[in-house]
Amino acid sequence: MEEQTIRVQRCETKKEKPQDDQLSFGKIFTDHMFVMDYSEPLGWHNASIVPYQPLQIEPSAMVFHYAQSVFEGLKAYRTDNGSIELFRPEKNMERLNRSNDRLCIPPIDEEFALKAIKQLVSIDRDWVPHTEGTSLYIRPFIISTETYIGVSASTRYKFIVILSPVGAYYKEGINPVKIAVEDEYVRTVKGGTGEAKTGGNYAASLKAQELVAQTGYTQVLWLDGVEKKYIEEVGSMNVFFKINGEVITPKLNGSILSGITRSSVIELLQHWDIPVVEKRISIEELYEAYQRGELEEAFGSGTAAVISPIGELKWGDKQLIINDGKTGDISKKVYDTITGIQYGHMEDPFNWMQNIETESPVKH
Amino acid sequence: MEEQTIRVQRCETKKEKPQDDQLSFGKIFTDHMFVMDYSEPLGWHNASIVPYQPLQIEPSAMVFHYAQSVFEGLKAYRTDNGSIELFRPEKNMERLNRSNDRLCIPPIDEEFALKAIKQLVSIDRDWVPHTEGTSLYIRPFIISTETYIGVSASTRYKFIVILSPVGAYYKEGINPVKIAVEDEYVRTVKGGTGEAKTGGNYAASLKAQELVAQTGYTQVLWLDGVEKKYIEEVGSMNVFFKINGEVITPKLNGSILSGITRSSVIELLQHWDIPVVEKRISIEELYEAYQRGELEEAFGSGTAAVISPIGELKWGDKQLIINDGKTGDISKKVYDTITGIQYGHMEDPFNWMQNIETESPVKH
Ligand SMILES: Cc1ncc(COP(=O)(O)O)c(C=O)c1O
Ligand SMILES: Cc1ncc(COP(=O)(O)O)c(C=O)c1O
Repeated sequence: MEEQTIRVQRCETKKEKPQDDQLSFGKIFTDHMFVMDYSEPLGWHNASIVPYQPLQIEPSAMVFHYAQSVFEGLKAYRTDNGSIELFRPEKNMERLNRSNDRLCIPPIDEEFALKAIKQLVSIDRDWVPHTEGTSLYIRPFIISTETYIGVSASTRYKFIVILSPVGAYYKEGINPVKIAVEDEYVRTVKGGTGEAKTGGNYAASLKAQELVAQTGYTQVLWLDGVEKKYIEEVGSMNVFFKINGEVITPKLNGSILSGITRSSVIELLQHWDIPVVEKRISIEELYEAYQRGELEEAFGSGTAAVISPIGELKWGDKQLIINDGKTGDISKKVYDTITGIQYGHMEDPFNWMQNIETESPVKH
Repeated sequence: MEEQTIRVQRCETKKEKPQDDQLSFGKIFTDHMFVMDYSEPLGWHNASIVPYQPLQIEPSAMVFHYAQSVFEGLKAYRTDNGSIELFRPEKNMERLNRSNDRLCIPPIDEEFALKAIKQLVSIDRDWVPHTEGTSLYIRPFIISTETYIGVSASTRYKFIVILSPVGAYYKEGINPVKIAVEDEYVRTVKGGTGEAKTGGNYAASLKAQELVAQTGYTQVLWLDGVEKKYIEEVGSMNVFFKINGEVITPKLNGSILSGITRSSVIELLQHWDIPVVEKRISIEELYEAYQRGELEEAFGSGTAAVISPIGELKWGDKQLIINDGKTGDISKKVYDTITGIQYGHMEDPFNWMQNIETESPVKH
């Protein structure tokens, strides 16, 4: 395929930008967006950066009926030296294509998509907030747009990238959350779409999420859909437990999202020679470790918060208070290191960061 | 809640209508559509029938990201005496609200929604085709429209109804299909969203559907997501087996869609004193019955085809030819009766049909 050019149409008036300390998450969008169409036999075409604007979509567009859609989430950080950098964005493009495959969506050119994202962020670079902990959230997504209400894979799609400046997740430093184990509802199951970042997984999660929120918990911890026994992941984070000196995270099994923060945490721990293992772990095993006093730390990992220490875990009528409800040493060290690399305070020994002004090829 | 009025804005020029024998499914839409908005604290409001037109939706609308959406499917039939009738539409409104509940979407007023559907069909009544077997497909659906990319239930929605004239499913009389048992992919699981008519279930099904289509089969037969052992349903139909004189259909278990055709088939069989039972049945049991020569008939039930006899069932390397690949007596009798009632050739002892011109209250 010949490399496409990206048509750029700049907006005439720029929106007012919010103050860094007024920022929340995902409600405000920047001046521009990237859009590209897919149709047969053209393939992906019409790549353009245009003013942020509503979409004109037919009510019969498939996405409204059969949820054939995928998305990604990553961030642009303003570093100490003023450059704007992305954290392992090539991994998001890889995952997007894996999601595409599961959802019968034609693959994108990963390198080209990353180039488009960099160019879009560069055009809206003034939207990247300045304060430590803030960032510009990048949301690439693909929706099916064929105007046909038969159940089948669409022949038309739109790939869109929108940008949203987001506030610091921890306003007063990293802080533990309370998580509840979900034993009624299920997010997904082996053979389902759990490994893919597709809307339906999140739609399926809302009910359980709403119920735990009412009882004061932040998110649910999902168990496997088959035996409701093995730990999978948190609502929008992967999960780690430090048990008797060893860090354990559930092994990817087809129903867990392969988090990019997760793999970065594993690489860091290995780099530090801290024992880390990916394996199946049941909620009973975790509880037994807790009873023996061996559950030393628990934390979630994800793009939004990087690391969320888990201070309390509720499982039925059992309440596990982990590390006295405080942030553990490893949680803190991992958090400080990843955010240190992201904001340019620390060296980047793994070459995780990509400057938006350089057109680095996709690294595998 | 006070009853809303429905604002009507008619289109200026009408589209050309296709010939009855040119009709397919779900690609052509009529002149008007119904739209109603939800926001807080207003609730559902702005009920209007407007010219069929594209939606203006922000790229950050939740439906594109988290697939919080539900839908229904039913048909309007032109009967022998010229009236236009709906088949048990109150059941679709009930099911829509059950789907809403699972997906954290605020309930609709079932009676009002049905009234709106009738008025819309009445305005576009010339679009209801005339030929036996044709009908006007009605697609009510609800999408989440809040412009926020955090994972949570939306605070804004649109309820939309669009209409599509559809051709006869069987152009040359009722005809058996070939179905393949799916043992790798899973549609949904207990605790998931299988019972709800939500987009994600269909997105999850595309991959398996695409793979079987390549080998010449029409749809997949889903097994349960836990043990991959018990029969659930076909891609867009419930399923029935006649084994040794008794008709068996999988018991609703939380992951099977509660089909309106399914419950009508059960009621009819009971009415005729034909033994019918809802129970869990494994694919092995079915195969054993087949080997003993006791699997006499198999058929799917759904709004699209009413009854689809299953002439061949593939399970791994086993090929079950049912009733010599021909339509069975019960399949035929059920099909003739339901379609007879729908097109007004036969009496309607259960009061299933509702004339679009009468504002009958929702029957429970
Ligand atoms: C379900 C789920 N699991 C895990 C993650 C963490 O993935 P990542 O580290 O790539 O952000 C996310 C969010 O991004 C998620 O939505
Ligand atoms: C998954 C699924 N099962 C069963 C059915 C049959 O339901 P009904 O008889 O209400 O059309 C449908 C389609 O409508 C469906 O999509």
